[in-house]
Amino acid sequence: MLQSKLFFETRKGVPKEEESKNAKLLIRTGFVDKLSSGIYSFLPLGFRVLKKIENIIRNEMQEIGGQELLMPALHPKENWQKTNRWETMDDLFKLKTDSQEFALGPTHEEVIVPLAKKFIQTYKDLPLYLFQIQTKFRNEKRAKSGLLRGKEFLMKDLYSFHTSEDDLDSYYEIVKRAYFKIFKKVGIAKFTYLTYASGGSFSKYSHEFQTITSAGEDIIYICQNCNLAINKEIKAENPYCPNCKSKNFIEKKAIEVGNIFKLKTKFSEPFELYFTDKDGSKKLVQMGCYGIGLGRLLGTIVEIHSDKDGIIWPKSVAPFMVHLIPLDLKDQKIRKISEKLYQELLKNSLEVLYDDRVEKSIGEKFVDCDLIGIPFRIIVSKKTLEKNSIEIKERKSKIKRLIKIKNLIHYLKEKAL
Amino acid sequence: MLQSKLFFETRKGVPKEEESKNAKLLIRTGFVDKLSSGIYSFLPLGFRVLKKIENIIRNEMQEIGGQELLMPALHPKENWQKTNRWETMDDLFKLKTDSQEFALGPTHEEVIVPLAKKFIQTYKDLPLYLFQIQTKFRNEKRAKSGLLRGKEFLMKDLYSFHTSEDDLDSYYEIVKRAYFKIFKKVGIAKFTYLTYASGGSFSKYSHEFQTITSAGEDIIYICQNCNLAINKEIKAENPYCPNCKSKNFIEKKAIEVGNIFKLKTKFSEPFELYFTDKDGSKKLVQMGCYGIGLGRLLGTIVEIHSDKDGIIWPKSVAPFMVHLIPLDLKDQKIRKISEKLYQELLKNSLEVLYDDRVEKSIGEKFVDCDLIGIPFRIIVSKKTLEKNSIEIKERKSKIKRLIKIKNLIHYLKEKAL
Repeated sequence: MLQSKLFFETRKGVPKEEESKNAKLLIRTGFVDKLSSGIYSFLPLGFRVLKKIENIIRNEMQEIGGQELLMPALHPKENWQKTNRWETMDDLFKLKTDSQEFALGPTHEEVIVPLAKKFIQTYKDLPLYLFQIQTKFRNEKRAKSGLLRGKEFLMKDLYSFHTSEDDLDSYYEIVKRAYFKIFKKVGIAKFTYLTYASGGSFSKYSHEFQTITSAGEDIIYICQNCNLAINKEIKAENPYCPNCKSKNFIEKKAIEVGNIFKLKTKFSEPFELYFTDKDGSKKLVQMGCYGIGLGRLLGTIVEIHSDKDGIIWPKSVAPFMVHLIPLDLKDQKIRKISEKLYQELLKNSLEVLYDDRVEKSIGEKFVDCDLIGIPFRIIVSKKTLEKNSIEIKERKSKIKRLIKIKNLIHYLKEKAL
Repeated sequence: MLQSKLFFETRKGVPKEEESKNAKLLIRTGFVDKLSSGIYSFLPLGFRVLKKIENIIRNEMQEIGGQELLMPALHPKENWQKTNRWETMDDLFKLKTDSQEFALGPTHEEVIVPLAKKFIQTYKDLPLYLFQIQTKFRNEKRAKSGLLRGKEFLMKDLYSFHTSEDDLDSYYEIVKRAYFKIFKKVGIAKFTYLTYASGGSFSKYSHEFQTITSAGEDIIYICQNCNLAINKEIKAENPYCPNCKSKNFIEKKAIEVGNIFKLKTKFSEPFELYFTDKDGSKKLVQMGCYGIGLGRLLGTIVEIHSDKDGIIWPKSVAPFMVHLIPLDLKDQKIRKISEKLYQELLKNSLEVLYDDRVEKSIGEKFVDCDLIGIPFRIIVSKKTLEKNSIEIKERKSKIKRLIKIKNLIHYLKEKAL
């Protein structure tokens, strides 16, 4: 993409009302824009990152048998009354028209359970794994953490349906592994801990995936013996690690990037979601639910992967792989070779942002480049061309090296893909 | 995909409360589910079609320079007051919290104009083309046309920003052509007419893309001389064709599958969206907006491409390309060869639904197959195997033919891709 055409502008200074690092950086770099407290637009650069995260999540969900669907955001009041959550759920956005009342869905048990009921009759229809990537709403009063806690946010929510608790238990472990694969792919697995949380009245535990960072709103306690963590609630109930019984924890601030619940029959009961088992008996369907917030994940990546100069995107989610900067656009030779390189990178499916802006100084371009945080910066200059080379710098390591132009595509393909 | 695992069930009979053919068929075939009047879920089969439509639209928008972003559904009341549409727009869903009022966006001028204002300074920042594929809301009182008119629906909305009316005019023509490309790709161009509609107070005309079908809620008048159409409003004002001045029209029922407007300065004015022109003068930005509803397009395709037996998906948007049905799953040879074929089709990127359901009779499978409407049905039977062949039938033409197994992939690649 030509940077002169890109709908984007790095903004000087930092938005005053924003407190969080992720929002400050993402707004400054033109990845997102704030419409209102807790409500953001994803601009073209941010949208590209969002789509990459979406595809990583989608692939892993498909790997574990998930079938994708898309449910509405407008939920009839009746569905929420059935589970008693119309009155009891905090932060539920409610909407009234002349003839009907709606909730704006913060989660979809109230929709997917009656939907599944139309299709599940016998044990042969189970297990079943359904997921969507869809916009959720929550009337969040403390929306001050940028993309970490919004009033409107994209979620991947997976729901599983089983004939037995055993089957639920084994799928739950499969999802755990899939989640760590996702966190590994987007570059935060090293900082992310499986964390015991309350299971509510219906399960002993649920699990959160907590990524440690100073921006975290949660506190977790990491067991120094087995490397699992527990959240505040669990710590208050019991000072021992539920996994290894150790008492040796360290406290860390963290962001909840995912959570998984064994719902068991909590929702199949109110909606009377039964199936006929092999022996002819009618039983309630066992359920699990599994969430990841996409915007929150994006915000977390920025909290983890950034330095004083800007963002440092992991290759898997970077908006572009290569940032191509000719040192002097007025120099015909530099320009010609840069444009040729640009075309060659495109032809080789290497996503490239070409800084063809004539009105910006090279100093401004370097500042923008570090801010935006594309993995590879390539500079074409008189000096590099004397050696038939370009200069390549990884945003991550800051090590610069000269590479022969003829070797560049090969080098990048090895490094990038 | 194995049909036994697919979250889907063709339902006997027709939902009583549904009046529209598209909703009846899509619900019966398990493509969509109705949550409430005008509110639908896309089930895995329907979701696959929706994604194909989405990608076709996205590609065409990128072809004409569109940059994708994603704006929120929650819009602060203040934005809508600025354009006077908070009070005047029918069907606006309004939401009140303790501290704030929101509209649920039925369109995004109120968000994108103040957003663009943050980035557009001079003529160098123009033209600019921004689009999104995003969920819209409208408090629709007559939601009885299935996917054609919903309370919640996916839209592609493109907004263009220009230095002059001339530039807007020429881009408007580019979008027209892109729209016809889209309608051609999804198989409805032949039935779709560019239709003059009112331009409101700010433009002489806007244009609708109207697809003629008996299910249409609109009436259009097709000029028998130049093949353009006009809508009811225009007809009432002036009995002559605005293009060729002919008076010879025929009346048809039609569905509006897209619309395009020259907004000119209607929205740049209230938001004071100015740019500095080459001569240093400050001018209002000229704008256009261009919409296509994805669910409505899907519903229209079904209205057009179906017969008494079910849906007949155009290849470009079909949920699968091939429906593979072994005539007798208990026959070891048939089963082995079918499974081998299934793997081979997958390996060759031919999307295939494999009917491995043991509890269904072959009669039921054929009925389901016609209902679902996948372009190619392949039957593997004792008789076909005697000739080392399979039977292939196109859903469209109903012509059956025997094809040697070894030639099948080649045949399908020629026909399908």
